[in-house]
Amino acid sequence: MIIAMSIDATEEEIQHVVERVEECGFRAHISRGAERVVIGAIGSSGRRHELEALRAAPGVEDVMPITHPFKLVSRQFKREQTIVNVSGVQIGGPEVIVIAGPCSVESRDQILTTARAVRAAGAHMLRGGAYKPRTSPYDFQGLGVEALRLLKEARDETGLPVVTEVMSTEDVDLVAEYADMLQVGARNMQNFPLLRRLATTPRPILLKRGPSATIKEWLLAAEYLLSGGNENVVLCERGIKTFETELRNTLDLAAVALVKELSHLPVIVDPSHGTGRRSLIAAAAKAGIAIGADGLIVEVHPCPERALSDGPQSLDLTEFAQMMRGLSAPLRQLAPSTCVAC
Amino acid sequence: MIIAMSIDATEEEIQHVVERVEECGFRAHISRGAERVVIGAIGSSGRRHELEALRAAPGVEDVMPITHPFKLVSRQFKREQTIVNVSGVQIGGPEVIVIAGPCSVESRDQILTTARAVRAAGAHMLRGGAYKPRTSPYDFQGLGVEALRLLKEARDETGLPVVTEVMSTEDVDLVAEYADMLQVGARNMQNFPLLRRLATTPRPILLKRGPSATIKEWLLAAEYLLSGGNENVVLCERGIKTFETELRNTLDLAAVALVKELSHLPVIVDPSHGTGRRSLIAAAAKAGIAIGADGLIVEVHPCPERALSDGPQSLDLTEFAQMMRGLSAPLRQLAPSTCVAC
Amino acid sequence: MIIAMSIDATEEEIQHVVERVEECGFRAHISRGAERVVIGAIGSSGRRHELEALRAAPGVEDVMPITHPFKLVSRQFKREQTIVNVSGVQIGGPEVIVIAGPCSVESRDQILTTARAVRAAGAHMLRGGAYKPRTSPYDFQGLGVEALRLLKEARDETGLPVVTEVMSTEDVDLVAEYADMLQVGARNMQNFPLLRRLATTPRPILLKRGPSATIKEWLLAAEYLLSGGNENVVLCERGIKTFETELRNTLDLAAVALVKELSHLPVIVDPSHGTGRRSLIAAAAKAGIAIGADGLIVEVHPCPERALSDGPQSLDLTEFAQMMRGLSAPLRQLAPSTCVAC
Amino acid sequence: MIIAMSIDATEEEIQHVVERVEECGFRAHISRGAERVVIGAIGSSGRRHELEALRAAPGVEDVMPITHPFKLVSRQFKREQTIVNVSGVQIGGPEVIVIAGPCSVESRDQILTTARAVRAAGAHMLRGGAYKPRTSPYDFQGLGVEALRLLKEARDETGLPVVTEVMSTEDVDLVAEYADMLQVGARNMQNFPLLRRLATTPRPILLKRGPSATIKEWLLAAEYLLSGGNENVVLCERGIKTFETELRNTLDLAAVALVKELSHLPVIVDPSHGTGRRSLIAAAAKAGIAIGADGLIVEVHPCPERALSDGPQSLDLTEFAQMMRGLSAPLRQLAPSTCVAC
Repeated sequence: MIIAMSIDATEEEIQHVVERVEECGFRAHISRGAERVVIGAIGSSGRRHELEALRAAPGVEDVMPITHPFKLVSRQFKREQTIVNVSGVQIGGPEVIVIAGPCSVESRDQILTTARAVRAAGAHMLRGGAYKPRTSPYDFQGLGVEALRLLKEARDETGLPVVTEVMSTEDVDLVAEYADMLQVGARNMQNFPLLRRLATTPRPILLKRGPSATIKEWLLAAEYLLSGGNENVVLCERGIKTFETELRNTLDLAAVALVKELSHLPVIVDPSHGTGRRSLIAAAAKAGIAIGADGLIVEVHPCPERALSDGPQSLDLTEFAQMMRGLSAPLRQLAPSTCVAC
Repeated sequence: MIIAMSIDATEEEIQHVVERVEECGFRAHISRGAERVVIGAIGSSGRRHELEALRAAPGVEDVMPITHPFKLVSRQFKREQTIVNVSGVQIGGPEVIVIAGPCSVESRDQILTTARAVRAAGAHMLRGGAYKPRTSPYDFQGLGVEALRLLKEARDETGLPVVTEVMSTEDVDLVAEYADMLQVGARNMQNFPLLRRLATTPRPILLKRGPSATIKEWLLAAEYLLSGGNENVVLCERGIKTFETELRNTLDLAAVALVKELSHLPVIVDPSHGTGRRSLIAAAAKAGIAIGADGLIVEVHPCPERALSDGPQSLDLTEFAQMMRGLSAPLRQLAPSTCVAC
Repeated sequence: MIIAMSIDATEEEIQHVVERVEECGFRAHISRGAERVVIGAIGSSGRRHELEALRAAPGVEDVMPITHPFKLVSRQFKREQTIVNVSGVQIGGPEVIVIAGPCSVESRDQILTTARAVRAAGAHMLRGGAYKPRTSPYDFQGLGVEALRLLKEARDETGLPVVTEVMSTEDVDLVAEYADMLQVGARNMQNFPLLRRLATTPRPILLKRGPSATIKEWLLAAEYLLSGGNENVVLCERGIKTFETELRNTLDLAAVALVKELSHLPVIVDPSHGTGRRSLIAAAAKAGIAIGADGLIVEVHPCPERALSDGPQSLDLTEFAQMMRGLSAPLRQLAPSTCVAC
Repeated sequence: MIIAMSIDATEEEIQHVVERVEECGFRAHISRGAERVVIGAIGSSGRRHELEALRAAPGVEDVMPITHPFKLVSRQFKREQTIVNVSGVQIGGPEVIVIAGPCSVESRDQILTTARAVRAAGAHMLRGGAYKPRTSPYDFQGLGVEALRLLKEARDETGLPVVTEVMSTEDVDLVAEYADMLQVGARNMQNFPLLRRLATTPRPILLKRGPSATIKEWLLAAEYLLSGGNENVVLCERGIKTFETELRNTLDLAAVALVKELSHLPVIVDPSHGTGRRSLIAAAAKAGIAIGADGLIVEVHPCPERALSDGPQSLDLTEFAQMMRGLSAPLRQLAPSTCVAC
């Protein structure tokens, strides 16, 4: 931490900060500049969060961190890339993994038809919502446990491992019984009791970035999972909220490249939520792979215009198969011999 | 709902949309313009959310709502202003209500000292965190039930009703035992299982706006509470996330005026989180009252530079008393004879 | 400047940075922490902007400024509040100044009617656009020099000094002939040739904040004017662009309080652009005064629904008079004996 | 345009809107719903911008456009892709075009060295700033006409056409004498006098997206150029301003795909400004090509750590050559036989 004193700070105020820095378990290093004094808090074992409060001390202008606040998720802590194994599918390895399926599970026929079609087209995993976070209480909220059962049936038939969202600590055990991977939705990225609970489940976690989460906040949410004991975490970029209104979200693809630099965790891209427009999904998916994502998660529905949620951003079965063919060149290039679809 | 067809939509596509509109329980009203056809879906009892999926139908360019999606929270549903009674304190009435206290309860001495001081300065309610949502797992997470007990002791001594945050459905009953009002924190504004659970508690709710929640999303979060049975909801504007970095958040005061127009629910302002800077709190508080807020919630700590959280945006006891004196003119003007501080 | 080296920086890399710091005219001060080395660049006469490029040097993780980059506009440079005299009207003094008038000058009748009405209601200055920056080339672009003549006529009749926007370096002399104060519109806040040209005019400048300008960028735009020789600068907060779509802009009132802290320049508020909604203007105006603004600029039109621009955010003549009566308490309180309206 | 009346609008208010719609040159089409009346303004020759003011008429709740406000730039106006010829280089055709060079021209040696190197590595055009828009008046502002002369020398030697920014109407003729293509910088995207002036130059224009410009505003800025007579416009996505602070801007790659859908103009991507980090440029460049961009513009400097501007986001000569080799697969795939670098 660097503590910049204000220009008119007194010697007494400087001394007071030095004492507080030492009380917090750091060594204080004073640097007297032309205009102001800057105090460095040196050491790695002090109480870092207490230092931040010094911004409130008299004569202090700013307190600036010089190290990232996350540890276990960082490349500095672990150099080699993490590979997360989801019932046999390796995310973070040489192959680009494609997860596909409807926003919500709506019926037996809908989920089975979709599962068969996405498997035939080359998807590696199945997605489908059982518990849906919906902005309005009057919108479709998901079929709940009935959906979980249908997902399991689709999984058993197709062999595709299933990922589905869990919204509440109370549902974790139930959902973990049916699903291979548990998703933390974007709006729950900073639901800390949920993160703490998921840290103790044996299932791998898909952690979506919050619509207004900085990259730092996203990695710190993952840090909750790792520090609580669950190292099987896959990050998912799904677009952030900005002033632009033509697209549902602004897909922050450069964040994928940066997170791969900062962290050893796999990162996948959601071009459906990331754009909100069916016509852009295939192009955004390609760009996601080009920038280094370890996989994709795409919404697919047998009849998007009748979908109970997210229809406008869902591919139909034919469009998904087309997208997969379009990706096959780069996918094959990256993973020449391991295509699970064949 | 208005469905705008694209310029080159065929008659067949138009007909298909008309049929879907009718299937969803609406009457279709076709308007043929110079360039394109626009179809209105008329009626109030149809399945509105299914219409939105029509954006995915061939020949459709856009689907635009023309009514607000919220009902019970709207002024159209209920003209008169709601007054929420928190153990005798009326929020939404003629008096501007001030809630004050530390970000986190840290010790018996800290919370009692603060409670006595804010009461003496004229506050009407006490705040204090027991369960703290923290960006990093390594930061102070709150004293939990021990903090709840200390808050109750402070309440019993000073007579100030207490508001504190509840982060998880599992904690609702416990927190409701100790607190007069339950707070939904900004990061939980769209934690729908929590909202559904809180809809069934007898306690009034303080619903903070999410850092990236639009006004519509905020009111729909409140709609979860009202439609679930809890009408005692107070909204709290606490700043939104923008590109500006000098201030912790951008306090959206005009939103307060707009929400008062759109809804009958009381709205209060949090100038501490709203600015993140101690020196701006008093001015922002005044502006909040001037724009029509029903109250304020302000962070106060006996020694901000030693606070375990939010020190830089906490007033010390003297500063809070000063702020209250500065507000007394407008406060008295609005509520001449009911100052509980005397 | 603080240069934080990365954890694995070599001694050679550290040495290289030290040399570059010294080459740029600073003294290098090395601080060796537990994890990394931090180098302070000390001195006030070095080439600051060259230091920033060191972020590109091997082994450097971050380069952080510890001083604000603006000088002449800062309170540290000049403690006392600047008062800008616009043909006799003092902006920045004890009285809250109200500037009112139509978005665009549309006709002789329109501007004269408005000027008389706003004067009668207590306004101190007249606004009116002659050259209009419009998002679409097909929208009304202003009457140009004809509008300037009409503004002058309104000024001569009512005695209200006039402010109007200048969009191009080529128009500066012409506009300065007719207007008492020249406005830099929000979209031109970083039009640096225009700022450099306006720095040499004898007219005072109204500098609107850009829709996506940080407070720092806004003050640096003012620094262009002051460093070029024009010290008569009034800043204007008019809302910033955020994800919120219910309101045209997000009025950043806390920025007013912060800018008053950082700078000696007067700041006024534009509640018309700041909200985009007629019904919110009076409340936002009050809040602006409460938070410490030195004045207001408000759009007024004799018939808003026929305005050629900004109708939805213009008060009609009666509404403006009402707003002024609503403000009179706080206005009078701040400036007991100088109300020009009487 | 759709005019939604409020729920309690009177017959008189409805009638008044109908009259105004007809006065503005449209046919009014009334649709009476269960809750409210909606009025469609039909016709393509009416005064569209006057309708918008109806939002200020009594009883009106909202005025919603149903067509895009741009014309000449739209795919509906012109189906086939525009190819812009810059002194022989075709932007928008089958080949992905790479423009490279320093942020600012700093010296003869710097620009010649860079020009030779980027040509050898396969770049098609040279960039270099002569007039620099800088946030602070104390930063390096460019070498002006001296830089123009050096650019011309580099162009003559290497054969690479040159693009450089023009900041002021007064400089247009001078810059057009030296450069093959004129750039409108991000901060000038809505400098309308500049756009109007550039509409009359014979040179093609590179129009950067403003840091807070919506896609609509960006296309309307291009509409100024086309409607003024210059059809040789290339759009450039260079990142937008968001809450994220780890990266200088948020590169909005999905916008590229959307703009290609909405407009016939070529679009290129600037991964240097788009990320602000040298280490991410190559990956972002690949993603830009994958999503359909017609080209790239990349900052290259012989010694980034000594660059007078944008060092941290400039590749050095070796890194640029590496990036080009990394792109060669996709570049070759898209343009098998036309590589100008060989």
